[in-house]
Order: sequence, then structure tokens, then C-alpha cells
Amino acid sequence: MFKKPPTDSREKTKNLLLNLQDKICEGLENSDGKGKFLEESWEREEGGGGRSRVLKDGAIFEQAGVNFSEVQGKELPQSIISQRPEAKGHEWFATGTSIVLHPKNPYVPTVHLNYRYFEAGPVWWFGGGADLTPYYPYLADVRHFHNEHKKACEKVDKNIYKVFKPWCDEYFFLKHRNESRGIGGIFYDYQDGFGSVYKGNKKNGKASQASQNIGKTNLNWDDLFSLAENCGSAFLSAYQPIIEKRVGKTFTTAEREFQLYRRGRYVEFNLVWDRGTIFGLQTNGRTESILMSLPPLARWEYGYEAKKDTREYFLTSIFTKPQDWENDKKLELFCLENNIFD
Amino acid sequence: MFKKPPTDSREKTKNLLLNLQDKICEGLENSDGKGKFLEESWEREEGGGGRSRVLKDGAIFEQAGVNFSEVQGKELPQSIISQRPEAKGHEWFATGTSIVLHPKNPYVPTVHLNYRYFEAGPVWWFGGGADLTPYYPYLADVRHFHNEHKKACEKVDKNIYKVFKPWCDEYFFLKHRNESRGIGGIFYDYQDGFGSVYKGNKKNGKASQASQNIGKTNLNWDDLFSLAENCGSAFLSAYQPIIEKRVGKTFTTAEREFQLYRRGRYVEFNLVWDRGTIFGLQTNGRTESILMSLPPLARWEYGYEAKKDTREYFLTSIFTKPQDWENDKKLELFCLENNIFD
Repeated sequence: MFKKPPTDSREKTKNLLLNLQDKICEGLENSDGKGKFLEESWEREEGGGGRSRVLKDGAIFEQAGVNFSEVQGKELPQSIISQRPEAKGHEWFATGTSIVLHPKNPYVPTVHLNYRYFEAGPVWWFGGGADLTPYYPYLADVRHFHNEHKKACEKVDKNIYKVFKPWCDEYFFLKHRNESRGIGGIFYDYQDGFGSVYKGNKKNGKASQASQNIGKTNLNWDDLFSLAENCGSAFLSAYQPIIEKRVGKTFTTAEREFQLYRRGRYVEFNLVWDRGTIFGLQTNGRTESILMSLPPLARWEYGYEAKKDTREYFLTSIFTKPQDWENDKKLELFCLENNIFD
Repeated sequence: MFKKPPTDSREKTKNLLLNLQDKICEGLENSDGKGKFLEESWEREEGGGGRSRVLKDGAIFEQAGVNFSEVQGKELPQSIISQRPEAKGHEWFATGTSIVLHPKNPYVPTVHLNYRYFEAGPVWWFGGGADLTPYYPYLADVRHFHNEHKKACEKVDKNIYKVFKPWCDEYFFLKHRNESRGIGGIFYDYQDGFGSVYKGNKKNGKASQASQNIGKTNLNWDDLFSLAENCGSAFLSAYQPIIEKRVGKTFTTAEREFQLYRRGRYVEFNLVWDRGTIFGLQTNGRTESILMSLPPLARWEYGYEAKKDTREYFLTSIFTKPQDWENDKKLELFCLENNIFD
């Protein structure tokens, strides 16, 4: 049923993701100019380990977490077994790289990346993606981030961005707030060379169109490996130009407060909805590394509502709703008229 | 199987909890001296509604949220049906009062209260409790908080505090941190006059000793009503003396930072483990009211560890572990020797 992965599949994916961690850390230190990553290597009782890197109080980054892990276990948690019943009763292997960057300046977006690879008995799959969470967004930045990831996808398959873009919109969605985490990017999961699709999770009730119908691909192991490689490499070219463009902008205390308030939403998504976080906490993962995604400072404010037609208002009226960023001309015009195009 | 509740059960519990909300708000405004509660009434599409009250930027309270709700729905979520299968297919009614207070001064503990009542077809049950989350605790305060709740329990049943104290320790536990949320208090759930006990939840894998064996009571409807009444009334006498004793203490920036850091744990518990929060978000509850429990400001810091033998160290080495606060003489001596007795 499942095609066998290459004999050196674990070594290959592990090295890919280790190198990705190295390259991205190097790039981020260059961007920041001041902060340096501190590394902690750790081992896991059940098997495997990782290296967690964190940069604190940089010139640009209030906190940057870049994790690598390669872990084994006896039995996958039920939430995954329900997606891949063939994995039941088998030992599992998982390797992944995860990044969350929290810049100081509210004009520089928060960003997330994760690429991962699983094996369990006869089953294997790739998952991952990258998504951007701006506080004061510009359409040009949104388009740039998407376009770099689109180009990376197209190196592997011309049609795959059209699958992974809506999947990202669906995945990074706060149902209890009826809003997206940010402007999206790409997301894919359970890619097993077999055209199998994500079956939805209990919390969402059922899988959406995006994951059930569109989320079907027939990429094989080598394609999926290249996909992780290309998309991982696209991260810096997708994000660094946005930093460079926005980091010089001065900001007010009120804008900083708004950023901290919106960071609260980031916390809500990660702790309530994120499968990666829940998987980590369920499988007795390294809590400090898993929760490195949480912001160094966050606010909650009962009953907050942005004043109509402010930039804070546009964030939720436009930028935390799924959109056709590239082709929606009405959206483009709106952004031009409201000085949020570039 | 289940004894029928009184014919006016819904009206009675609703009024009990509305009055409790009123009395506590009045008491808290008196304590604070400056802040006033603002009220918002709301309705729920599926049926019912509530009144949410919040006090912001008081003299003592950075934020105080005191909610009342009375809601109906078509079908309870699976997480509850698995505990009470008899409720399946029946419309449900639930009423509750929830309180979370976040004081400014790190020497004044955060506190939580919730009392609730459910009906669904043939089944009804009471649940609730109150627990204290200090940042710089004193054993005398811990004892006082427990003792007031113990006295309230004893008015109904001499042995019930011994059931609800360990149950609280078990419930308010962050498995991914291996620590309690705070020093506990009392907690009970699924009390249906039938001696039924909580069957554990999926996240915990199985129910503990506390909930499986000890968590068995045979209180009837009237007892359980009185229990909520007595324990609800005990809240102010359990908490206000602690405020009065500690609110005059000056604190350093470092102590404030530690409070914000520990508030991050409060967020983690509420979003990852708290059944009430998950129930609310699953049943399309009023998100702003549910998440009023989250602190106005919170920090996360990768790899933080308190220096040995500091007060910050004692918080996790002693006060976020279940203890026999009243009778442990070694603990008492330790607290006396380290100036954390009173």
C-alpha cells in the first residue's frame, strides 16, 4: 500500500532539517546584527533528542526560537493514529525543525516555520509550512511572502501552491475568534506519496474542503523531500526583505500595546488549536522547546475593539481573513487607497 | 437511577449563582476602593445568556472578571457525554458563576472560583470549587484559604473536604510542567447525588486516586445546593484577609517580572487543561467572557530557572506541589525558618 521510503530516509531528512536550522540561524543573526543564538542540546528518555536555539533581546528580535528535534517513541498518540491507523502498534520516528520569531517592532511580522517527517511501521509522511502573522500589514509584504513560497512549491509541482495555500488558511484558524492567525502562507500534512489526505480532527468536527478535496497530492518521497528543501530555503528570502523594509519604522506605545494584544491571539492558537504543540505535550516532549513559540510578552484585554477604519481595524477586517492576495483587484485598490499597500 | 431534582431546580441554582455574583462584586469593589465593575449582558443564539462583569485597573486589581451565565443547548460535547452517557441525545441546561482575579501586587495571590450546575435529560450534577495561585506565598495564607473552605464544606459533611482538597490538587495540575497551578483549595465535579465519580479524561489518560476512589460522595441535591451556597459564601472570607495582609507590601521590578512569568503558567493551564474553558470554546460560548480568566499581561522566558533557596525557588519546590498544609510540621518549620510562614 505505502511505497517504501529510501533506506537512508531518516538520515537524509534529519540532515536536511539540521542544515536548515543552521542556515536560518546564520541568516537571522546577520539580519539582527546584535543578538546571538544560544544552543541547548537535550535528550529524551524514550529516545532521541534535539538542539534548541534561542536568541533573546536582539536588535530586531525580542525572541527568536529555532528548534531541531529527532525523536522516537513506542506508540503515537491517538490523535495521529486516527489519521493514520496503519501506524497503530508501531514504534515511530519523527524529525522536525520549528521556528517562531517575535520581533520587537510591531511593523515587523511574527513568522513561523515547521518542516517535519514521520515514520511508523509501514507509514511515513511529510508535513510542514510557513506562515506570517503581521500586526500592521502591507499588501506588498503579504504578496512577497506568498510569492516566494509559491515559487518554491512550483519547483516541485506547478499546482501544489493552490493546494497548500488554502490548507494554511484552514489550519491557522482560531475557530473561537472566527479569524485566521495571520495572512497565511503554505501548510501541508500527512503527505505520504499515496494521495492520502488529512481526515480532519475532532476539534474541528470534520475536515474542510481545503484538506479533504484540495489537500490531495500525489507527490512521491523524493518530491516531498525536495519540497521541504525548497520551501525551507525560501524562508529567508520570503522574510528578510520584509524585516529590512519595516524595521526602521518608528512606532508608538499604542502600536506596541496592540502588538502585545495580538500576541495574545498567537498564544491562544498555539495552546488551543496547534497540532504540533498538542503532539509535543502529549508525547512528553521537551516543554521548554515546544513552548518557545510563545511570545516573551503578551496582553489580554476584555472587550477590546479597534476603532473603525484604523489600521488595527483593517487587521481583522481584511488581513485575518483568507484572501486571494495576488489577484483580488478590489483588495489591491483598497490597500492602495488606505496606504497599506506598501 | 438518578433521583429527580426539585421542580424549581433551575430557578433555584440560577438565583443562587446570580446572588453570589452580586455579593462578591460588592465585596471586591469594597476591597479595591477605586475600581468599579462594568457589566455587559449578552445572549446566546442557541439559548440563554449571561452577565459579564469586569473591573480594570483598580487600586488592587489589575483585572477582576466575575461572570454569570445560564445557557441551553441541543447536545453536550463528547468530552462530557463520555463522563455522563445518560445525557446523550438530550438538551442541556447549565448555569455557573466564574471568577478570576489578577491583582497588581505580586504579594497578593491570583484567585479563581467557579460553581456550576448542569441538567441533561435524566442527569443533573453540581461542580465547582475555588483555588489560590500565589506568587510569593506565606503558609499562614495558604492555611487560611484552605481552612475557610474546609469550614464551609463541614457545614454540609464532616468528611467532604478530605475528598475535595486532593481532587483540587489533581485538577489544577499542569502535566507538561509537572507542577500544580497553585496551592489548591477545593474542587468537585459530576456530583449527582448518586455517588458517581469522575471517570478521568483522555488528556490525563485515566482518573487518579483522588477522583476515582476518594472523589466519591453521596450528597443529595439539597446537600449539593447548600455546598455551593456555603463554599460560595466562604470566598470573600477566604480571600479578603489575604489581600489586606499583603497589599501594602512594596515590590521590586524583578518581583513583578516573576509574577508576569508565572501568569504565563496560568494561561497554559487555562488553555491546555481547563475543562471549563474547553467546554466553553467547544460549545460556541462567549469567547470574551470565557477568556476573561487570562491575565492582562503575561511573560514567557525560555529556560528560566529560579536561583536555589530564593522565594521564587520555594514557589515551585514547595508551593506548587500538593501538600498537607495544615498538618505537615516539617513544612511549617521550613516556612518559619525561611520567613515564609506569615
